[in-house]
Amino acid sequence: MPSEFDIIRQYFSPQSISQTRDDVILGIGDDAAILAVPDQHQLVQSVDTLVSGVHFPVATSPEDIAYKALAVNLSDMAAMGAKPAWFALAITLPTDDEEWLKAFSQSLLSLAEKYNMQLIGGDTTRGPLSISITINGFVPTGKALTRNTARVTDKIYVSGCIGEAALALAAWQGQCLLNEESINVINEKLNRPQPQVELGLLLSDYASACIDISDGLIADLAHITDNSQVGARIIFEKIPLSKEFKQNLTDDALIVPLVLSGGDDYQLCFTIPEKNNDEFKKIIKNTAILVTCIGEIEKESGVRCIKDNKEINISEMGYQHFISD
Amino acid sequence: MPSEFDIIRQYFSPQSISQTRDDVILGIGDDAAILAVPDQHQLVQSVDTLVSGVHFPVATSPEDIAYKALAVNLSDMAAMGAKPAWFALAITLPTDDEEWLKAFSQSLLSLAEKYNMQLIGGDTTRGPLSISITINGFVPTGKALTRNTARVTDKIYVSGCIGEAALALAAWQGQCLLNEESINVINEKLNRPQPQVELGLLLSDYASACIDISDGLIADLAHITDNSQVGARIIFEKIPLSKEFKQNLTDDALIVPLVLSGGDDYQLCFTIPEKNNDEFKKIIKNTAILVTCIGEIEKESGVRCIKDNKEINISEMGYQHFISD
Repeated sequence: MPSEFDIIRQYFSPQSISQTRDDVILGIGDDAAILAVPDQHQLVQSVDTLVSGVHFPVATSPEDIAYKALAVNLSDMAAMGAKPAWFALAITLPTDDEEWLKAFSQSLLSLAEKYNMQLIGGDTTRGPLSISITINGFVPTGKALTRNTARVTDKIYVSGCIGEAALALAAWQGQCLLNEESINVINEKLNRPQPQVELGLLLSDYASACIDISDGLIADLAHITDNSQVGARIIFEKIPLSKEFKQNLTDDALIVPLVLSGGDDYQLCFTIPEKNNDEFKKIIKNTAILVTCIGEIEKESGVRCIKDNKEINISEMGYQHFISD
Repeated sequence: MPSEFDIIRQYFSPQSISQTRDDVILGIGDDAAILAVPDQHQLVQSVDTLVSGVHFPVATSPEDIAYKALAVNLSDMAAMGAKPAWFALAITLPTDDEEWLKAFSQSLLSLAEKYNMQLIGGDTTRGPLSISITINGFVPTGKALTRNTARVTDKIYVSGCIGEAALALAAWQGQCLLNEESINVINEKLNRPQPQVELGLLLSDYASACIDISDGLIADLAHITDNSQVGARIIFEKIPLSKEFKQNLTDDALIVPLVLSGGDDYQLCFTIPEKNNDEFKKIIKNTAILVTCIGEIEKESGVRCIKDNKEINISEMGYQHFISD
């Protein structure tokens, strides 16, 4: 059985990491990494842990686990308008399954390379499978996007389509039936969310507040409104749904909770002040990024969702103020 | 049962953190923390994970777990000559035991305060108990201590006494009998190692290489010699042992492996170039820090230990080159 040191050396060594950055003064192999944050920039740092059987089914492939573990962290960088730079991996493994490790590390390093990120260190321990990634990025000083700066009359936007990960989970749990084509498309959305890093970087010039949708649209929008001491009104019919929703589901009693309370989409929910809105719409048209205005920030606290011109009772949908798990 | 959000809010909220630093622009509560690294400084970052039943006995108190989880990370900062600044906590908990959490968080934040550190974020997940801490510190640009810069004729030093944690473990496992007073003293060494942060900061002006002793004296010294492409010769009789060793053990067959291969001491092992040695000895005399010269760096690769004027066969003691678990 290879030792911990062998594992690290073989799959996560400097030699196996094709991506190297000039701002990594010393990477893997010492007591800590030495890193240079560029002048006039702030460091943005976040940690997310995925536990087997809690955040992903035990049977999930190592490639998908690795992808998702890094993608959810990249999504945090996107939500802050930060440019990802470095990450550290703390992985707890029940056994030394070399095939598993090979697949895991290749998937992880391949996604890292796509975003010009370098693995700078970590820790390998023996125990029940869990993956904890610390991600680091930069913003020009003062340019980070936060949750607490939405203002009344700001337009509320989301990127991409909403509720897709929840639809995949619902199908997987047998709560609904999907046609075969939809199953593949929608599982890809659950297992391989696309972190909206490019959009986050663009938003730092236009948005007043931003969050990534991990807990569900209403819950995450409520994080913005609660932290900003404002409220929000969104229109259900404006929320962008993928064709997999339209093709497979007709029952509003199923659709509405998936869209409003489903988590794990890793799209961005953000607010654009009125004065920036025209310019933002012009800029975004020149990109391939899908964004949709779904409502507006208002004075009255809480989040309201209007459907068929009536307010939906969102508390009946399992949504609770300030509860996120 | 309180939700994940309640736990974070109650025990790790900005309100419960007495320590706040000016360089934390945004701490807990958003998708990521925003941090300012001082001009002319580099960031030093490390991650260490402790798993219940692997790194500490299941019965360990929450206070001791919290202390050790942060202390081993502080020790990494010490080994780099870095000044600790911020840390993030990724904790996986089997249940919401409020008493446990209260004790854990108080112990953690109390040690953090001692080092003027601020908790900047983290992640709470449900699962088998494990604690992963990401620690961040600074060094003036170019002043970090590393493993790969020891040179022939450098003096080899250690801080404190060696083998104490291994002695505590040996007693706990019934391999030796200690008198009652020794048991308390030595268990404190295992559960509450003192990270050598002050020494690390001082060493950045004098040492050529440095590591913290977590895997065992020989194994960690070998990390320095292997990375520096040199070798080392140490004299067993010079290695500082605490009075608990002298009072309780007489059998060399037990003492020698505990001292040479025992891990978890979190003392520093470092090298001082001859030209700095007199000045270093003068400076260290004015502090309360215990350091001892135990040998010298030499050309021939590998680590040799001399006892009673004969070379000990360290390979018979379970020491393997490059294997650290």
